[in-house]
Amino acid sequence: MAIKIGILGYGNLGKGVEAAIKKNADLELCAVYTRRAPQDITLATEGVAVKSIEVLESGKEDIDVLIICSGSATDLPEQTPKFAAMYNVIDSFDTHAKIPEQFKNVDAAAKSAGKVGIISCGWDPGMFSINRVYSLSVLPDGEAYTFWGRGVSQGHSDAVRRIEGVKDCRQYTVPVPAALEAVRSGSNPDLSTRQKHTRECYVVAEEGADLEKIEKKIVTMPNYFADYDTTVTFINEEEMKANHSTLPHGGSVIYSGTSSEGTKHVIEYSLKLDSNPEFTGSVLAAFARAAYRLNKEGISGAKTVLDIAPIYISPLSAEELRAHYL
Amino acid sequence: MAIKIGILGYGNLGKGVEAAIKKNADLELCAVYTRRAPQDITLATEGVAVKSIEVLESGKEDIDVLIICSGSATDLPEQTPKFAAMYNVIDSFDTHAKIPEQFKNVDAAAKSAGKVGIISCGWDPGMFSINRVYSLSVLPDGEAYTFWGRGVSQGHSDAVRRIEGVKDCRQYTVPVPAALEAVRSGSNPDLSTRQKHTRECYVVAEEGADLEKIEKKIVTMPNYFADYDTTVTFINEEEMKANHSTLPHGGSVIYSGTSSEGTKHVIEYSLKLDSNPEFTGSVLAAFARAAYRLNKEGISGAKTVLDIAPIYISPLSAEELRAHYL
Repeated sequence: MAIKIGILGYGNLGKGVEAAIKKNADLELCAVYTRRAPQDITLATEGVAVKSIEVLESGKEDIDVLIICSGSATDLPEQTPKFAAMYNVIDSFDTHAKIPEQFKNVDAAAKSAGKVGIISCGWDPGMFSINRVYSLSVLPDGEAYTFWGRGVSQGHSDAVRRIEGVKDCRQYTVPVPAALEAVRSGSNPDLSTRQKHTRECYVVAEEGADLEKIEKKIVTMPNYFADYDTTVTFINEEEMKANHSTLPHGGSVIYSGTSSEGTKHVIEYSLKLDSNPEFTGSVLAAFARAAYRLNKEGISGAKTVLDIAPIYISPLSAEELRAHYL
Repeated sequence: MAIKIGILGYGNLGKGVEAAIKKNADLELCAVYTRRAPQDITLATEGVAVKSIEVLESGKEDIDVLIICSGSATDLPEQTPKFAAMYNVIDSFDTHAKIPEQFKNVDAAAKSAGKVGIISCGWDPGMFSINRVYSLSVLPDGEAYTFWGRGVSQGHSDAVRRIEGVKDCRQYTVPVPAALEAVRSGSNPDLSTRQKHTRECYVVAEEGADLEKIEKKIVTMPNYFADYDTTVTFINEEEMKANHSTLPHGGSVIYSGTSSEGTKHVIEYSLKLDSNPEFTGSVLAAFARAAYRLNKEGISGAKTVLDIAPIYISPLSAEELRAHYL
């Protein structure tokens, strides 16, 4: 019998999870829950119900795991603990500084309900975290470097869109090739924020907008752009649609460490993703399987990808994995 | 209190584990056990006892985990189950086809003794297996490609050394650049054994040996070389010592998969290792920590790297990992 999945939120990420579920015969999409009017939403999967988020709150929906695909900033801190008190849940909470707090809140709720709540699952946090921890555990005398891109940062794109006179923006985060090379050589360089990544903004301005002013606003924006070398390119809507309509991303965790005087090792984990939301959705789908299985074993409380053995996320049996993939 | 480690076997791998233990404050090397005469062995670590393997067989040695650093072919199938009936143990058993049998034997022995026995731990099997399983679980519609090298294969070097007229040999396994490139592009190529790797042999021949005959014997050797493009270069002993005295290795697991029609993702995990035995030893040391911790939790039986959550191999606490590495 397939594992019954509910998706909360049908934006890019929710659609990515939906695509992932189609690739997994043991997962079944049972319902999509939304804050919008359900009748306004047409799913890519036929025969699946779209329901109001309100029906979830009964705690009685017939799902094994709820995959919460809402925004990290304000929705997940509220929704994940709330629904962990009713269902096995999983989210992709990515506000790194607030992970301990999210963990604590989800842990309390999930334990009280005898459910499992997996937080911060995706690729960073997620697959990148797993690789950072494996590497630093195997080679404690070393250093981890994380590079993102080339890829679209939705947070940075949104920040630019909020500037007066900006109609649309796509922001690409780009690792600096010289920095990548230095790290891959095993030289353990000290790298500033500016030395690691550059930022490229493709901006559609409103007619008659002051382009110089927009550019200055972007490149001096604190937290988002001020610490980076940022280039701004103004384009028209047709170009935006033709060349910037997908959401590719990726990056690398490069770890360089020594096992004895003069003996170096470099470990690199890298992702080249055609679609950030579909890959993140694929990670969420695999770990939703783990949430279900852990809970079946009587386990409850908050978990992260670091707490879960690889065997729990595979559709294959332990015997098959040992025989063919070890 | 530190975790008390015993090492069985003081060859390249045993020395690699010894080096790794020095990098981990929570691991303490308590004794090295050997089949040789203990007085003939001088450890790199001062103040640690070298003992005969026979004292291990009492089952009463005061160690938390025994790291077994013997050969896969004949020693580990006998030693790992035997000592799993007395101690928590870990090995790097790498005869892929016989892993299910080794698992079964170690599982029975370890369960009867209430101990944990981790088998097939290192980088392949080991870190590469972990990456194959994560990738295929996240993107089930895809394919894993494993490349080894450039690096020294000790098994192939030994095979050449057994040829009449050969004094010494170092065999390098080298991935074919065009194959790597094709796989990284996401094109999911079908690749024969010959298309994936070439083999380079550096051979010191005995004086007066028939070089042509040696070369022919090497390149036509079934299983080892017949299916590869192999080059043989004769060198003298000085060159061997000057240019081929270390044991570098590495490789890549490249996984290419799709999440929906036309949407591709490429995941690559790669290792560049100055010393194969020191890196393998470092992986063993980290997972020895897991053997100890799992056993402390009351768990017993055989485990592989696939059964163990990342959190168990880190010296850091779950809270620290969540706060700083997730």
